[in-house]
Amino acid sequence: MIIVMKAGAAKKEKDEVLKRIKELGYTPHVIHGTTRDVIGAVGDERGKLVLQSLESMHGVESVVPILQPYKLASTEVKKEPSHVRIADGVVIGGDQVVVMAGPCSVESEAQIMESARAVKAAGAHILRGGAFKPRTSPYSFQGLEEDGLKLLAKARAETGLPVVTEVINPETVDLVASYADILQIGARNSQNFALLKKVGQCGKPVLLKRGMAMTIQEFLMSAEYIMSEGNQGVILCERGIRTFETATRNTLDLSAIPVLKRKTHLPVVIDPSHGTGDHHYVAAMSFAAVAAGADGLIVEVHPDPEHASSDGPQSLKPKKFAAMMEKLKLFANAADRTL
Amino acid sequence: MIIVMKAGAAKKEKDEVLKRIKELGYTPHVIHGTTRDVIGAVGDERGKLVLQSLESMHGVESVVPILQPYKLASTEVKKEPSHVRIADGVVIGGDQVVVMAGPCSVESEAQIMESARAVKAAGAHILRGGAFKPRTSPYSFQGLEEDGLKLLAKARAETGLPVVTEVINPETVDLVASYADILQIGARNSQNFALLKKVGQCGKPVLLKRGMAMTIQEFLMSAEYIMSEGNQGVILCERGIRTFETATRNTLDLSAIPVLKRKTHLPVVIDPSHGTGDHHYVAAMSFAAVAAGADGLIVEVHPDPEHASSDGPQSLKPKKFAAMMEKLKLFANAADRTL
Amino acid sequence: MIIVMKAGAAKKEKDEVLKRIKELGYTPHVIHGTTRDVIGAVGDERGKLVLQSLESMHGVESVVPILQPYKLASTEVKKEPSHVRIADGVVIGGDQVVVMAGPCSVESEAQIMESARAVKAAGAHILRGGAFKPRTSPYSFQGLEEDGLKLLAKARAETGLPVVTEVINPETVDLVASYADILQIGARNSQNFALLKKVGQCGKPVLLKRGMAMTIQEFLMSAEYIMSEGNQGVILCERGIRTFETATRNTLDLSAIPVLKRKTHLPVVIDPSHGTGDHHYVAAMSFAAVAAGADGLIVEVHPDPEHASSDGPQSLKPKKFAAMMEKLKLFANAADRTL
Amino acid sequence: MIIVMKAGAAKKEKDEVLKRIKELGYTPHVIHGTTRDVIGAVGDERGKLVLQSLESMHGVESVVPILQPYKLASTEVKKEPSHVRIADGVVIGGDQVVVMAGPCSVESEAQIMESARAVKAAGAHILRGGAFKPRTSPYSFQGLEEDGLKLLAKARAETGLPVVTEVINPETVDLVASYADILQIGARNSQNFALLKKVGQCGKPVLLKRGMAMTIQEFLMSAEYIMSEGNQGVILCERGIRTFETATRNTLDLSAIPVLKRKTHLPVVIDPSHGTGDHHYVAAMSFAAVAAGADGLIVEVHPDPEHASSDGPQSLKPKKFAAMMEKLKLFANAADRTL
Repeated sequence: MIIVMKAGAAKKEKDEVLKRIKELGYTPHVIHGTTRDVIGAVGDERGKLVLQSLESMHGVESVVPILQPYKLASTEVKKEPSHVRIADGVVIGGDQVVVMAGPCSVESEAQIMESARAVKAAGAHILRGGAFKPRTSPYSFQGLEEDGLKLLAKARAETGLPVVTEVINPETVDLVASYADILQIGARNSQNFALLKKVGQCGKPVLLKRGMAMTIQEFLMSAEYIMSEGNQGVILCERGIRTFETATRNTLDLSAIPVLKRKTHLPVVIDPSHGTGDHHYVAAMSFAAVAAGADGLIVEVHPDPEHASSDGPQSLKPKKFAAMMEKLKLFANAADRTL
Repeated sequence: MIIVMKAGAAKKEKDEVLKRIKELGYTPHVIHGTTRDVIGAVGDERGKLVLQSLESMHGVESVVPILQPYKLASTEVKKEPSHVRIADGVVIGGDQVVVMAGPCSVESEAQIMESARAVKAAGAHILRGGAFKPRTSPYSFQGLEEDGLKLLAKARAETGLPVVTEVINPETVDLVASYADILQIGARNSQNFALLKKVGQCGKPVLLKRGMAMTIQEFLMSAEYIMSEGNQGVILCERGIRTFETATRNTLDLSAIPVLKRKTHLPVVIDPSHGTGDHHYVAAMSFAAVAAGADGLIVEVHPDPEHASSDGPQSLKPKKFAAMMEKLKLFANAADRTL
Repeated sequence: MIIVMKAGAAKKEKDEVLKRIKELGYTPHVIHGTTRDVIGAVGDERGKLVLQSLESMHGVESVVPILQPYKLASTEVKKEPSHVRIADGVVIGGDQVVVMAGPCSVESEAQIMESARAVKAAGAHILRGGAFKPRTSPYSFQGLEEDGLKLLAKARAETGLPVVTEVINPETVDLVASYADILQIGARNSQNFALLKKVGQCGKPVLLKRGMAMTIQEFLMSAEYIMSEGNQGVILCERGIRTFETATRNTLDLSAIPVLKRKTHLPVVIDPSHGTGDHHYVAAMSFAAVAAGADGLIVEVHPDPEHASSDGPQSLKPKKFAAMMEKLKLFANAADRTL
Repeated sequence: MIIVMKAGAAKKEKDEVLKRIKELGYTPHVIHGTTRDVIGAVGDERGKLVLQSLESMHGVESVVPILQPYKLASTEVKKEPSHVRIADGVVIGGDQVVVMAGPCSVESEAQIMESARAVKAAGAHILRGGAFKPRTSPYSFQGLEEDGLKLLAKARAETGLPVVTEVINPETVDLVASYADILQIGARNSQNFALLKKVGQCGKPVLLKRGMAMTIQEFLMSAEYIMSEGNQGVILCERGIRTFETATRNTLDLSAIPVLKRKTHLPVVIDPSHGTGDHHYVAAMSFAAVAAGADGLIVEVHPDPEHASSDGPQSLKPKKFAAMMEKLKLFANAADRTL
């Protein structure tokens, strides 16, 4: 930490700050500047963050952290990219760009089976589908719950596709984990720490979505919550942040890909469907994501979007998805990846 | 809902849209414009929201909702302001501006007792203090949990101040409710729908904080989640939204006060401590909140901010809090309120 | 400046950084940390900002500025609040809360005269009205230009109210200054540096609006542009920033008031009309602004908002404005100010 | 326009609104809803925007625009993509992805000549370089002005590369246009309407940067300003918008590419250097931009970023730029484009 003193801070104030730094177990180093003093506090600042409280002291202008507060997720601790193994031949974070596809919600056996066959035929590697749905309105469709999980398992049995589905309550983590291959944490639960701890205690890989107002640093801190409970299988998913722009549902932050690749060894997946909220833009943003270095995509595909229970406007029809997958191969190859 | 057709949409496309509107139980009315047609769909659009899926249809440019999607929280349903009764003589939403004050976290018996006495002496009506803490870092202090709740109960027993404290997990709602007078839902859990439903089933009043990237409409939808489970005692709390500005920790949106007063009958409370993140700005924003029509404040007060486990920089010392309360009376009176 | 080295930076890299710091005229001080080194560069960092370029060097993680980059606007240079004198008895930044009011645009002689009489009768101190209008659409009303300025001068002659009006082009600064008492720089021109320099060379006071995506620091840098050309009569105006929220036209950042009061000696005025975009919210936010310590308000008042050429929805009718002024006195008094 | 009446609006209020709609030259159509009436106003709403003023009327809840307010820039008016011809063999908006590259500022003859040769050798099509610099601080380097323009002309003479450079003041548009092949309007001047009009009267193509808080709709309205003055050679440039995220200097909104491609026929260019503010991320975002359908890139390249007068941290060294251009070809080909 760097403690910036006010211009004209009294000697007594500086002495108090130095004393407090030592009390907290750090070694202070003073730099006398032209208009003010700056104090470096040497010691491991992670895992404590207590120095921030110095901002309350007289004579202190501000406290500037130097270290990133995450450890397990950091490239400083582990340099090689992590490979998260989902099933035989499906590894996220390796050479292959992994595509997860399927409807927003599981609505019926016919719908999920048709979706699963279609995305499999088009080359997707994992089936997505929501059984527990976090909906903004209490009056909207809330998902088929365990019946939905059973249908996902049935679709997996037929197609061989592993399944990713959302979990929204610590109480149902074990239930969902008994059906799913990947547990999804949605954007609205990205700082639901009780839920993060619970999936951290579970053996299954976790697809962690970035919150709508979440910084990259906070995103990695939420990953750290899961990892610090013992689960290293975290897949990060950028799905659009909230900005002033309304032409798209969210603003898909693709620069998060190279930023995350520099800061963490965890794989990065992009959700162009929620990121844009409009099926017209999904293909372009999928190509861009792979070009920027994404390890995978999660895409909404629905056989009949006009009749979907949720998120129809952003779902691709199977035919369009298949055409997109064809073209995606070219971009994956340009990025030295397979699809 | 208003369905805007594309300029040059084919007759067949319009017919399909009209057919689908009728299937969904609405009556379509077409307005032929100079460059495009616009279709009004008449019927109760709340509780369904299914018309949005028309955006996937050929020939449709966009779908524009007309009604607000909340009911129970709306002034259209209930015009008179709601009064939420907390304890004898403490009602939120009435003539009195209600002040909740206390430390961010309960840290020790000495700390919470000293805080409770100090805020009581200064005229606060309710004691705040966190026992379960949602912290961005897994390595930060996570709260004293049930021991913290017991200390809050002890402080209430001595001072007579009712207690507001945060609940972060559906599993511990009953435990927290057995100690607290008001259950607080934090900003990070403002769309944790499992938790909202659970506190909705509980008899205790709920202080619902606005999420960092939450629109006013979504805020009211989260209130609607609680109310639709049977709990009408919802108190809305604006605590700052996330913007590009970094001079304050968040941007306290005081215009939310008159906006909410127009849209809902629920009381509105302001948190100037999290809203600014800096104790220097708390008094000014407290005065402003009351001037703008807030029904109450929730303020962090700590006897020793330099040694606080969390949020030291934004906590007022008891002496400053007392001085602020003195001045706040003048603004409450100017606003035709008591303190 | 603080230069944070990467963990594991090579000695050669550190030596290069030290050498470059000295070349730039600063004195380096190294703090050896537990995981990385941090280098303080001592010297006057303002007026140069060149150290930022060190971020390009090998082994450098980041460069953290310590000083604020503004000088003339800073409380470090001038501690007492600045009083900007507009006319006999009208001073902004003193004990009196100064209210500027009038229509968005000057539309006709009848309209501006009626507006001027009405706001004068209600107790306003300055007349506002736009003659050169920066409109988002080239097809919208662009203002009466010099004819509008003449009408403002006529209104001043009759009512005695000084006039504030916007200038949008360096070429017309002298023309506008020959009619106006205060030159207004609009939000969209807040970083139009050619215009800032030009009004800085002009003797008239300047009302500088904050840009929609402008940080407090950038706001003060734009003030510094004007001041560094010799014009110290700068009045800062917060008028709402752009955020994700759409319930209001902008998000009025009232915390800017105490933040600015801490960082600068310049007076601060609030524009609740543009800040909210809705006349329903103007009174509440005006009261709040004064409670938070604002030195003045600029409010849109129009005798016939339904027929206004611009910004009708956010304009108060004269009767409502007069009622608001009555109540505003109470808040000004509570804030130890006069009105 | 759609006028949404309040639930329970009086008949007299509705009659007043109907009357006013007719006065304004529109034909009203009433839809009687279950809880409220909605009125469609038929007529050309562009170029007037006056219906918005109905929001001030009693009984009106809100006014919802249906048409986009731009015409000349719209795909509704011109469906085929516009090709902006810069020089022999350099056309923006055609099959070729066009790359503009060079330093942020022209600093010296040696620097601009070395830059020009390097970017030419790597395959760039246009040379960029600032002679008039809009800098946040009045104390920062402001550019070499006309001397810089002369150096750009010299670099063009030697390398044959056309030149793009920024114009910041209506007074110097003619001067800059006498040297430059493309006039750049910077983000901070994106709603400087006096400047937009002036470059609209000039024959030279204009590279219009999106403002930091500018919606897509406003961006197209600024293009419309230029086009409505007679200049159809507008090139749109996304360069990052301002959000809460600080890991990058701005948030590069690549979804603007497919959104703009749907709404306008104008070419779209991406600036990954300002968009990210960090040279580490420039290549990834360049690849992504081309994959998403961008017509071109504008990239900062500097022979010696550590000694750059501005924007060193985001500038590529020539060697890295050349490597990026090699790889970019693969992505251009995958996107069915040449480079």
